[in-house]
Amino acid sequence: MATDQARSESEGTDTYDAFESRVERIANVSNAAGVLQWDQEVVMPDEGTPARAKQLSTLSSVGHELLTADETGDLLDELESSELDEEQTAVVREVRRRYDRETSVPQELVAEISETTANAHPVWKRAREDDDFEEFASTLEKLVELKREYANHIDPDEDPYAVLFADYEPYLDLETAERVLERLRDELVPLIDAVQDSDADLETDAFAGTFDDDDQEALARDALDSLGYDWDRGRLDTAPHPFSTGTQFDARVTTRFDPDDLLGSITSTIHEFGHANYTLGLPDEGYGTPLGEARDLSVHESQSRLWENHVGRSQAFWGYFLPIARERFPELESVSPEAAYEAANQVYDDNLIRTEADELTYHLHIVIRFEIERDLIAGDLDVSEVPDAWNDKYEEYLGVRPDTDAEGCLQDIHWSHGSFGYFPTYSLGSVLAAQLYAAAEDDQGEFGEQIREGEFGDLNGWLRENIHRHGKRYTTPELIERATGDELGADPFLGYVKSKYGDLYDLDGY
Amino acid sequence: MATDQARSESEGTDTYDAFESRVERIANVSNAAGVLQWDQEVVMPDEGTPARAKQLSTLSSVGHELLTADETGDLLDELESSELDEEQTAVVREVRRRYDRETSVPQELVAEISETTANAHPVWKRAREDDDFEEFASTLEKLVELKREYANHIDPDEDPYAVLFADYEPYLDLETAERVLERLRDELVPLIDAVQDSDADLETDAFAGTFDDDDQEALARDALDSLGYDWDRGRLDTAPHPFSTGTQFDARVTTRFDPDDLLGSITSTIHEFGHANYTLGLPDEGYGTPLGEARDLSVHESQSRLWENHVGRSQAFWGYFLPIARERFPELESVSPEAAYEAANQVYDDNLIRTEADELTYHLHIVIRFEIERDLIAGDLDVSEVPDAWNDKYEEYLGVRPDTDAEGCLQDIHWSHGSFGYFPTYSLGSVLAAQLYAAAEDDQGEFGEQIREGEFGDLNGWLRENIHRHGKRYTTPELIERATGDELGADPFLGYVKSKYGDLYDLDGY
Repeated sequence: MATDQARSESEGTDTYDAFESRVERIANVSNAAGVLQWDQEVVMPDEGTPARAKQLSTLSSVGHELLTADETGDLLDELESSELDEEQTAVVREVRRRYDRETSVPQELVAEISETTANAHPVWKRAREDDDFEEFASTLEKLVELKREYANHIDPDEDPYAVLFADYEPYLDLETAERVLERLRDELVPLIDAVQDSDADLETDAFAGTFDDDDQEALARDALDSLGYDWDRGRLDTAPHPFSTGTQFDARVTTRFDPDDLLGSITSTIHEFGHANYTLGLPDEGYGTPLGEARDLSVHESQSRLWENHVGRSQAFWGYFLPIARERFPELESVSPEAAYEAANQVYDDNLIRTEADELTYHLHIVIRFEIERDLIAGDLDVSEVPDAWNDKYEEYLGVRPDTDAEGCLQDIHWSHGSFGYFPTYSLGSVLAAQLYAAAEDDQGEFGEQIREGEFGDLNGWLRENIHRHGKRYTTPELIERATGDELGADPFLGYVKSKYGDLYDLDGY
Repeated sequence: MATDQARSESEGTDTYDAFESRVERIANVSNAAGVLQWDQEVVMPDEGTPARAKQLSTLSSVGHELLTADETGDLLDELESSELDEEQTAVVREVRRRYDRETSVPQELVAEISETTANAHPVWKRAREDDDFEEFASTLEKLVELKREYANHIDPDEDPYAVLFADYEPYLDLETAERVLERLRDELVPLIDAVQDSDADLETDAFAGTFDDDDQEALARDALDSLGYDWDRGRLDTAPHPFSTGTQFDARVTTRFDPDDLLGSITSTIHEFGHANYTLGLPDEGYGTPLGEARDLSVHESQSRLWENHVGRSQAFWGYFLPIARERFPELESVSPEAAYEAANQVYDDNLIRTEADELTYHLHIVIRFEIERDLIAGDLDVSEVPDAWNDKYEEYLGVRPDTDAEGCLQDIHWSHGSFGYFPTYSLGSVLAAQLYAAAEDDQGEFGEQIREGEFGDLNGWLRENIHRHGKRYTTPELIERATGDELGADPFLGYVKSKYGDLYDLDGY
């Protein structure tokens, strides 16, 4: 006969198994939707949209229903009062968080947000084409109201913008984001001023010319080969807006080729490699639960930016990769590694478009959006005031003023998705990338020599060991602390850019 | 105040709406699985399989649960005692049929079949590689038992093979299939004898040579262009086993290219076009319900075979298409349309492999499988007797005896899937193709002149009008009767092949 304790343990195991199988089903539905989205962006015929929208909507509602069902809540309650091991505790913590958020928002509101954003997309697109913010204003107003209401359901006692931010970054609280972004603003504005005042004469036309798409694709594959991309679990395709998606068994990269922008396709491919490489480093045996899922947006972005910037824009990398690029493009024969490095790190003066920004000015684009959306959600800024606020901030932080809203506050898609609180994660990702890279070099020594030889295994091994393999086992602050010995902070990033751009632009005092 | 009748009508409408929305969700889950399957066959990286299998298994169980939920049964009961219009009646009829079948089989048995077939596939594959039927025998035995049990749950009073057949062909009863297949056997065996005894000297090497894959692909696209494939709702890719999949918004074709088999890639592409073209002819507004879904396997196969054989293997088609093929392959300059036609319709003597068979012998391959699987399920044939029964029948019907089981009873994948009752639908499809083509020519006049000019619109218009647009509105016998004025029968097919092969092989009395 089983003792009481044995019976209780076995019941606990049964409960956990039932819970895990439920969680895995939810993940499978969500991963299936990921395949449909990849398909839509990459291979779906133009007129497939109406059916695809319905398929995705059904998968989304099926996933939501599985997550928010009473059975899920009952299992969570039971498990939270049971003895769980560390892994089980982490899975329960992550699912509880999603369960609480999704059950707190009424389905009618979710449906209204979903419908409003679906309709907002074409309105935003037309407003941008017409360069007329007015066309988008009432839609944006509606989205701000709906998202405030949404936040209020989740936590009526919390700053609604903090609640929205937590949709994208659940464990790094808003104070951390604010602290980092303010620091970036305060330090980068003078640094960019110094760069713009510099007399240094960078060679910036190393990649001027016209480059065949097929050869660019071959070179993008060379880059992925070099970095160690696992083609048995991945593929490369083109998409209008490059992205990466998938699971540890199948993590795909997309990129785009513009005949006038060879450098852009290389850096974009390396960026997406960083995302896919993180996904591929998640443990196989964790598939289907948070233990096999990537941490949130900032950590994901840290991986893409670490590879794009710390590797792909380094002097060492161009020492290694330029000869490979010359095999595809003999016209690069006359370009020196130094010139390639300088071209890859040029800071532009007339800096209006976020997605075209360099490593320095990028963060002021983010700071501007962050300050505006935070004030919008707080009700401290009216929608009608957005264009002026936007233009004033560009003038103040970047010394340029957009002539049009199309090049100004209408340039990004995010608000038309109702995504308020998303932008900061881009900068947090860069900051974390620098922090991780510094910690990896503290552990392993500098990677420059290896990179110059095309050896990326030690760096990637460190990331696998310290970030990838953990999935969502640790919260983001715990993960960062374990990997770097420190909380998230801007110092490593600022140290990195000051040194890099100080050298590039011969800046005094940097 | 609403009258009682108005209230009852409004309640009926609400009930139907709830039912329809449930049915649409089930369709969306199933169509999502279709996308995942396309992805797996066409673009998925090799190592994606474990995660994909789990995703597909979850979608399958989610769809099953939505269909078999008590709510579905309650809605069906309520609607069946309500006033419904013709379309609603058809939708309820189709869903009721699936509901009754799926609720009658215990989930443990479904899971056991699913697990057994998953494990059977590698066993069958290895047995075929090793040319050793014994390796597969006990697995086949198990599958036969499980499928008998399955059939018994659905209808214990019916011949279990008839129940299994109805999984693939719900409305054409087994007697119809038997009648047609016996007729084919009785008439084709002497016709094939006559062909094999003929002294006619066909030109059969028109497509001998080696043909570049890329040029073959370009030619496959030419063929699809010619036939009127809608590229805004479709695409062409390669797959090891060509197939077509999708919805009326997105119906994709796959094909394969073998440098030694140009003709094979053309006929295979046209075959899959026929499937996709049916799907694309389903009404947009029916998406998500049976009104927007294709009728079952035989009708689907009638569409692929009509285009592959009645169009793509016709003298008129080669008059039109050979000049197009010559543009891609100048080496075809010396080939005459007559020689191309003869090569496309050659009847082989040593006919062992179903998938390589011509239009005549194909059906004896099917008859053999039909007779064996029917006897297996009935318990009149033991699994251990399958190789001998197979070889004896090949000798009797086709005058050839396989030397190996790999070229004999292990050649097809179907039984390893537990698919007993599937094979007959291939021949029923051919028979129906001939019947439809004859009816279309009765209505519109002969299509030969149009085909010679590359005009396929009238033929396709007739198919759209008489078959495609109806979805599952009518049962299969109703659909055939409305389109052709007759029940399904072998006469048009037999008339077609006797005339065609009588001419090709100068046969007396044909």
